[in-house]
Amino acid sequence: MTAVRPAGTGLDWLATTGADWTVDPAVIASRRLDRSGWEPDGEPRAVVFPRTAEQVQAVLRGAHATRTPIVARGAGTALTGASAAGAGEIVLDLGRMNRILAIRPADGIAVAEPGVVTADLDRAAAEHGLRYAPDPASLELSTIGGNIATNAGGLRCAKYGVTRDSVLGLDVVLADGTRIGTGRSTLKGVAGYDLTSLFVGSEGTLGVIVAATLRLRSLPVPTATIAASYPDIADAAAASVALADARIQPVLAELLDEATLTAIDAAQGTSLRAAGAALLIVQTDGSPDEAERAIAVLGQGASSLRSTTDPAETAALLAARRQALPSIERLGRPLIEDIAVPRSRLAEAVREIAAIARRYDVPICTVAHAGDGNLHPLIVAGPHGAPISAAATRAGDEIFGLALRLGGTVTGEHGIGVLKRAWLEREVGPDNHALQQKLKALFDPNGILNPGKAL
Amino acid sequence: MTAVRPAGTGLDWLATTGADWTVDPAVIASRRLDRSGWEPDGEPRAVVFPRTAEQVQAVLRGAHATRTPIVARGAGTALTGASAAGAGEIVLDLGRMNRILAIRPADGIAVAEPGVVTADLDRAAAEHGLRYAPDPASLELSTIGGNIATNAGGLRCAKYGVTRDSVLGLDVVLADGTRIGTGRSTLKGVAGYDLTSLFVGSEGTLGVIVAATLRLRSLPVPTATIAASYPDIADAAAASVALADARIQPVLAELLDEATLTAIDAAQGTSLRAAGAALLIVQTDGSPDEAERAIAVLGQGASSLRSTTDPAETAALLAARRQALPSIERLGRPLIEDIAVPRSRLAEAVREIAAIARRYDVPICTVAHAGDGNLHPLIVAGPHGAPISAAATRAGDEIFGLALRLGGTVTGEHGIGVLKRAWLEREVGPDNHALQQKLKALFDPNGILNPGKAL
Repeated sequence: MTAVRPAGTGLDWLATTGADWTVDPAVIASRRLDRSGWEPDGEPRAVVFPRTAEQVQAVLRGAHATRTPIVARGAGTALTGASAAGAGEIVLDLGRMNRILAIRPADGIAVAEPGVVTADLDRAAAEHGLRYAPDPASLELSTIGGNIATNAGGLRCAKYGVTRDSVLGLDVVLADGTRIGTGRSTLKGVAGYDLTSLFVGSEGTLGVIVAATLRLRSLPVPTATIAASYPDIADAAAASVALADARIQPVLAELLDEATLTAIDAAQGTSLRAAGAALLIVQTDGSPDEAERAIAVLGQGASSLRSTTDPAETAALLAARRQALPSIERLGRPLIEDIAVPRSRLAEAVREIAAIARRYDVPICTVAHAGDGNLHPLIVAGPHGAPISAAATRAGDEIFGLALRLGGTVTGEHGIGVLKRAWLEREVGPDNHALQQKLKALFDPNGILNPGKAL
Repeated sequence: MTAVRPAGTGLDWLATTGADWTVDPAVIASRRLDRSGWEPDGEPRAVVFPRTAEQVQAVLRGAHATRTPIVARGAGTALTGASAAGAGEIVLDLGRMNRILAIRPADGIAVAEPGVVTADLDRAAAEHGLRYAPDPASLELSTIGGNIATNAGGLRCAKYGVTRDSVLGLDVVLADGTRIGTGRSTLKGVAGYDLTSLFVGSEGTLGVIVAATLRLRSLPVPTATIAASYPDIADAAAASVALADARIQPVLAELLDEATLTAIDAAQGTSLRAAGAALLIVQTDGSPDEAERAIAVLGQGASSLRSTTDPAETAALLAARRQALPSIERLGRPLIEDIAVPRSRLAEAVREIAAIARRYDVPICTVAHAGDGNLHPLIVAGPHGAPISAAATRAGDEIFGLALRLGGTVTGEHGIGVLKRAWLEREVGPDNHALQQKLKALFDPNGILNPGKAL
């Protein structure tokens, strides 16, 4: 890319940072939005591509001094508007800081720059018989920095935890350009307040992560992958709760509702719906005994059950889950929601969401990480390219309200971004919300870090 | 207990809080120290025993208004001076807030007041086939609130995480008496900044926990408990690293050095030292295959190895670890240190600690959670009842310096308290330290919450 730096943009200070930057409209357009489809007002002023932590420091010092808002960006896979940038803002694209700085198998840790693609880190760890456990659906695109900024979840976090559970320490540039280390390079440590966890999930509003020390885990061998169909969503949800009652901890437990199965069948030519109105896909990696018990538990009430240990067949059983989003996208533009409820309320949540779909006459397909009680209702919000329909927006609001009514949260793993800002205070209460705002002001007194997001 | 409330103490405002309180010198003496043996200057003014969150709020409102320092206390098992109280301070004893408010097996959560004894919660969970995973050595005495305040570790955290990994949400009273909820009642959730993790490990300096929502996990069955002796500590440390290389994740991996084995033999009449100069005790709960592989890996270079699946024999193998501290206490007053290093530096750390013991001519016995690289050098600091010897203090400082030199931390699981305050800034750096102090000032502007601790 040729850097385009016309005079008269008022951004001459960027030239002193040492980082590449551009005001090329095509580059700006390619770095302006995230995957939420949310459209900010106006265009950002420039995109900066630092290669070093020192360049990030220089950019933030300049931004702090000139009160220029900065939107840090990984791969732009956020589903909440968290990485969208608008008028007056500068995009800080961390994609070129993409080196894996260390993999230390004996210590069980890796050190990575923020722009490393998550799946690349996992593959590098696998060469040592290890793995980076968090596996958001976007893992082939999204970056470690973005995953940390949103505290990304995934399928196997039911057993192995979300991103926060794998972050041991961070190298962070604060709003004024000061650079601090947080956490540690050891597997355990409790020195001082947990600043690491405070940055995890803060959506670029408290600081910019320039490196992370991450926990690697030993690579377990799956003992069984099971696909069980049920006549009704309640049966499938009950089966997933029965696993917990039977002291079985699956790696993943993915639930697909009737609308989702119908969409997949239509798009892929499968006949999943014929086997039952709900599908539960479960994988275990404990003892073979645990796998056998899981098959027995899931078989209760199932209209059909397949189980395999063969890698190719495993991939085939998991394919239904992976095909869900592309299949639903054929129906129109999906609004991907992300509520979580106490695990025992899962069936109730799915049924209520189906009722909301009928009430607002919008298609809603629900897939869920059942082991966590984390549901993704995918609202078909109108044709692709068209604005989100009013009915879809109202249905989304009903779903947020439902999550809170069931004792849950409006976001299980995607974050608040801009789309759910109105719901945060309702969920956490005014005193908690006020405290969060005070924290933001402490970390970023000039309000330059991803303003208007997360809070 | 009869409440003793003489006039003229300047504490009449306590009477309006609804909580029991006393200035009885005997009660004050029983609530003044923790297990570090650190002696604060002077005596606290009173001990308050709230039974409800509302009473805690009233106490903090009064303390905030009168600028009276408050030292929250669970069972007083801190090893750092974190729960010791001195002149002018009021002890807030949370031991009467000891109800388990809910166990919801289908949701995988429990809700507990801070004064619940950790082992009691685990036993209550076990009735449902679940467990509360964190198991600090003090678990039969220490409380959930104290465990959260220190982010307590334990033996099985090698596989199942430290206290933070089991805390989903908190009910916290802030310094001015405001009460907020943090986190969630679901297994996943990312709404807003992670205030929960900020309170975990904050040693009573940011707020007072009045209830916690905790994650329960399914109760795995141990597949093998293995005790392997080695000719040299380096062999034992290498064996623990070899487990990780072999993709084995033990539940616990406890390392005992020569000085510790000698102390146990002297106290218990055993002959552990004769089998080898270092002992590694490992437990697995994965597949039987993993247990077999662990036995094969640990057998390499072992001078002796025993393995069992029998519960009584398992208890016998684990007994050596449990006897370590009582045996060492026969030698004198132990100063229990708590460094962590990258796992690959474990043998080096143990050898350097032995060299420090020789250099300062003080006995130091080292036990380690080898899976985490977390070492507990137990410095025999003189006769019981006598002050800590100057040589022991200097040896301790050398050990802290060693931890930092090896890329580790001065505290793996016990916390900073007062004893390690001088080391915190050296470990985290001045800019991080300054940020932590700003956080403290934000949460506690009048400086009434456990002043002089943790930072």
